[in-house]
Amino acid sequence: MLESCLIPEMASEITLQPVRRHDVDAAIFFSDIVIPLKLAGIGVEIKPGVGPVLDTPIRSAADIAKLPELTDDMFEPISDAVKLTVAELGSRPLIGFAGAPYTVAAYMVEGRPSRDHLGPRTMMHQDPESWDRLMTWTAEASGRFLRAQILAGASAGQLFDSWAGSLSRTNYQHKVMPYSQQALEHVADLTGEQGIPLVHFGTGTGEILDLMRDAGASVVGVDYRMRLDEVNRRLGNTPGPDGRTNVVLQGNIDPALLDADWDVLEAHVRDVIAQGADAPGHMLNLGHGVPPTTDPTVLTRLVELIHSIDY
Amino acid sequence: MLESCLIPEMASEITLQPVRRHDVDAAIFFSDIVIPLKLAGIGVEIKPGVGPVLDTPIRSAADIAKLPELTDDMFEPISDAVKLTVAELGSRPLIGFAGAPYTVAAYMVEGRPSRDHLGPRTMMHQDPESWDRLMTWTAEASGRFLRAQILAGASAGQLFDSWAGSLSRTNYQHKVMPYSQQALEHVADLTGEQGIPLVHFGTGTGEILDLMRDAGASVVGVDYRMRLDEVNRRLGNTPGPDGRTNVVLQGNIDPALLDADWDVLEAHVRDVIAQGADAPGHMLNLGHGVPPTTDPTVLTRLVELIHSIDY
Repeated sequence: MLESCLIPEMASEITLQPVRRHDVDAAIFFSDIVIPLKLAGIGVEIKPGVGPVLDTPIRSAADIAKLPELTDDMFEPISDAVKLTVAELGSRPLIGFAGAPYTVAAYMVEGRPSRDHLGPRTMMHQDPESWDRLMTWTAEASGRFLRAQILAGASAGQLFDSWAGSLSRTNYQHKVMPYSQQALEHVADLTGEQGIPLVHFGTGTGEILDLMRDAGASVVGVDYRMRLDEVNRRLGNTPGPDGRTNVVLQGNIDPALLDADWDVLEAHVRDVIAQGADAPGHMLNLGHGVPPTTDPTVLTRLVELIHSIDY
Repeated sequence: MLESCLIPEMASEITLQPVRRHDVDAAIFFSDIVIPLKLAGIGVEIKPGVGPVLDTPIRSAADIAKLPELTDDMFEPISDAVKLTVAELGSRPLIGFAGAPYTVAAYMVEGRPSRDHLGPRTMMHQDPESWDRLMTWTAEASGRFLRAQILAGASAGQLFDSWAGSLSRTNYQHKVMPYSQQALEHVADLTGEQGIPLVHFGTGTGEILDLMRDAGASVVGVDYRMRLDEVNRRLGNTPGPDGRTNVVLQGNIDPALLDADWDVLEAHVRDVIAQGADAPGHMLNLGHGVPPTTDPTVLTRLVELIHSIDY
């Protein structure tokens, strides 16, 4: 899995397959949250049925002090894959992809996926200096990873904070958000000039959507748990420090309904579109990953349905 | 694990150990969410490192039609364990324990723990009749399980909806809450006469705390993600259909801080107490389970600290 992310021809081919098969309006760059670690020389692999596993978890100040320096040339296989992909896509946009600093740090501290992320959640209080150093490093890794993709031709970027929903709002605000902001600042000059949208996505993030916007995102990704009309109401009512009162939404078809009858799925999709109507823009997508049980022909039909709707 | 729940002497002993060791103010009945299934003759075991695994998942209308009838005598080992425990506890209260219908149903449909609970979340939309039958059964199982404990001498009851946070508010309200209400109605006559508190707990439930209260709970359990002052504000501002505008809170010391330095933990505990001050009552406890890495002497010291604070 990780090897295939680092062979440009293969990463590009896998990125293009869903576009060819389902005719989606944009491609999302095929990669993995831990790829920047791998590129930096940290021992990590994807264990089947488990997920990313590090050879040595990063738990102490000494471990963090030994983290490798990040350089631009580390990301060459990524740039190459993006260039190949963009050439094939033509006018269809490619969305760049990076894990957010907290989610990357959670894998580093735990050394593997965990349910409650106790390791990183203890460290941020117990040893704030080490936490700051670790998160500064992961912010740079995520930021450079995303920047390499955008410089190579990606038309947008998406920061995935898979585990942000495991945090209280206070902890997110003080211990995580500043680093997601740092990561996004790595591409702020690019987005400023070229108007490139930056999507910020997590799951179970109902309490922190405004903070995810204020970290520097132009699009907030919403999982299937929240109604988009409620998100829009909530974000519209809580202006950020820069005076913005609204933001484009991405979301949020419930993946559980991909396995339901077509009528049930279609009604849900139309409802999601109606809920998003008041947002200044709406990138319609799934509110979490495609379940392994999903019949791929349902995805093709879903895209056809969405293309037939004028919204 | 499940066997030890069904041997009254052992379930009682395990319930009493934390009381003896840490001097907590109440005991919580040692049991498991799937115990009512086991008592009803459904093949289920706890696999180490995995969790509850059913011999045969319950996925179709035919599977649900074959679910065994529930009878009071099934719960005799539970009643016996509670009686032994209450006799030992004296005036210290015992809190009864049951899984909420959705969490029990999620295990039944998936056949094992899962991250996204796609099976039950698909079924509730795809086959609403089967979902209703399954949830009616699990509501009865949970309700009878809790009733047996209260009749045998438990002074309170707690309904654990571990996976409620995986649902949208709309799905919780229409597809889950009515059955949690049914489960709690099994003990409503007991709570009415004797004033027995009913605690309703889940994780990641910030969006549905008012619904969890309105399902018939007199105490809402809050995980570590939400500040208690925010919960109190939110619940006070959203009166239920019966006109109640407030509810006792249970929570919510962050288990991640049990592994931090004492000063960090103590400051956090005092903050949690301060946050809960405006609630009409506050049952101070952890905002999720004790991590396996926790030093038990920290728990003893924590209880001493809490006993030393006048709140």
